[in-house]
Amino acid sequence: MTGLTLFIETYKKQVEETMLDQVKELNAPSTLRDAMVYSLEAGGKRIRPILLLATIDAFGLDCKIGLMPAAALEMVHTYSLIHDDLPSMDDDDLRRGKPTNHKIFGEAHAILAGDALLTESFRLISMMDHATAEQKVSLITELATAAGAIGMVGGQVADLEGENSSLTLPELESIHERKTGHLLIYSVIAGGILSGATQKQIEQLHSYAYHIGLAFQIRDDILDVEGDEQEIGKPIGSDISNNKSTYPALLGMDGAKQKLEHHLIQAKEALSHLPLQNNLLSSIADLIVERRS
Amino acid sequence: MTGLTLFIETYKKQVEETMLDQVKELNAPSTLRDAMVYSLEAGGKRIRPILLLATIDAFGLDCKIGLMPAAALEMVHTYSLIHDDLPSMDDDDLRRGKPTNHKIFGEAHAILAGDALLTESFRLISMMDHATAEQKVSLITELATAAGAIGMVGGQVADLEGENSSLTLPELESIHERKTGHLLIYSVIAGGILSGATQKQIEQLHSYAYHIGLAFQIRDDILDVEGDEQEIGKPIGSDISNNKSTYPALLGMDGAKQKLEHHLIQAKEALSHLPLQNNLLSSIADLIVERRS
Repeated sequence: MTGLTLFIETYKKQVEETMLDQVKELNAPSTLRDAMVYSLEAGGKRIRPILLLATIDAFGLDCKIGLMPAAALEMVHTYSLIHDDLPSMDDDDLRRGKPTNHKIFGEAHAILAGDALLTESFRLISMMDHATAEQKVSLITELATAAGAIGMVGGQVADLEGENSSLTLPELESIHERKTGHLLIYSVIAGGILSGATQKQIEQLHSYAYHIGLAFQIRDDILDVEGDEQEIGKPIGSDISNNKSTYPALLGMDGAKQKLEHHLIQAKEALSHLPLQNNLLSSIADLIVERRS
Repeated sequence: MTGLTLFIETYKKQVEETMLDQVKELNAPSTLRDAMVYSLEAGGKRIRPILLLATIDAFGLDCKIGLMPAAALEMVHTYSLIHDDLPSMDDDDLRRGKPTNHKIFGEAHAILAGDALLTESFRLISMMDHATAEQKVSLITELATAAGAIGMVGGQVADLEGENSSLTLPELESIHERKTGHLLIYSVIAGGILSGATQKQIEQLHSYAYHIGLAFQIRDDILDVEGDEQEIGKPIGSDISNNKSTYPALLGMDGAKQKLEHHLIQAKEALSHLPLQNNLLSSIADLIVERRS
């Protein structure tokens, strides 16, 4: 087992426990709690909290200080999936092989469970231990910026409006950046803030996260063409049949693979300027590029 | 013109300008900005920001220091109205005589405009001037608590589940407390935090806001029976025809009026323990009890 595999196994579980503990103890209507818990328990790679914790670990600190904001971050991601799946948005019945939130709890409860997860995420950060008030304020400014109108929500609007139209590469990248990139960048920046990184170091972390974010998306598009249906858990070619703009469609398969390699190299270049104690962040970049699901 | 009327006229306008300035300068898709602006411009009493600013003024400080959190607070209220009006929730076509957000922009954009307003509210507070990092963290903890699963969102869930069933008085009060009371209390507490109020003073502010919150709701229920259709802008008796549990239904009209008087007295009692420089908060309590719309 590599260091990264062990790290992921250990902290994925701790982040999941932290999220569930926080939600289960809320004095809220039980159906609301159930709907929140259902989607938090639906699994996933937990890549965002892992990035946050790995950044702290790589700076040589005990990454447990980041468990609460890591849980908050995954709650924000989970809220965005619940709302994206709604009938008026992507209208998805299944996510990771399980019925989507509104299929189980109804639309009203799904919307409200998302609203509550988003709101709780800010509460968790504001109440965390192991951080100064200044660090909490920075974490909240950055999270709200990444998740809000100029970030993730704006990306979802642009995505809805770009559906079924042919996008250019810059348009495609701009949507990805907003819809998923900003929150991935936040994951790493938040780890840097909690590690006391300098402004220059935050900029390098930003560059690293920017490049692995795009690499993640390109790898997704490639897997939709070349992946194993069993491993990725959805039909191959669904992007093509859904008429979605993708990297292979815009650049050809070879071009997409070259672009993937380019972003991997750039991500590692950014890391080379940082005083890191281990190679966790570099291994995460490799994992994103090599993953089969 | 009384001091309160002038205060409301002056600051209502400034809060509205602050909200619109913040949203209009966002580098977000224009349809998203338009949907956010539409509901922010839809009017309303702006009672929450006025309470926040009046509290600061009553403590003798320049209430302009609270403009940003006051704008954030009204954005949270506005998001809650947009989501409450959705077809899967209360399914309202009109609000304050104008088509609801989803009737103009569609459900997806209405949900996302709400999400964005909620998220922006935390960003505004985290970036405000005239507050220490500790004050900002307190404002955010309190806002997320008031607006989240144990507060407003939980209240909306309880309200949806209680529809068409006969509620007891304690059940009715519990729903009002969550759905509208917590955010009204937050309005006053936030003013206290920014005024440097002591813990004991915060408790008195809490008591004041708790009582005016219930008074507001009772007055609403009374106006639904005795009000002037022109003045309140909706048909008289709509609560009865919608089979809603109300104070007059549970206590009789005389009982409801006695209860209203009781909460007014309690609210003023709480104020009597505070070192206030003027009678703004007391006048707001009177206004709530006497209002005709």
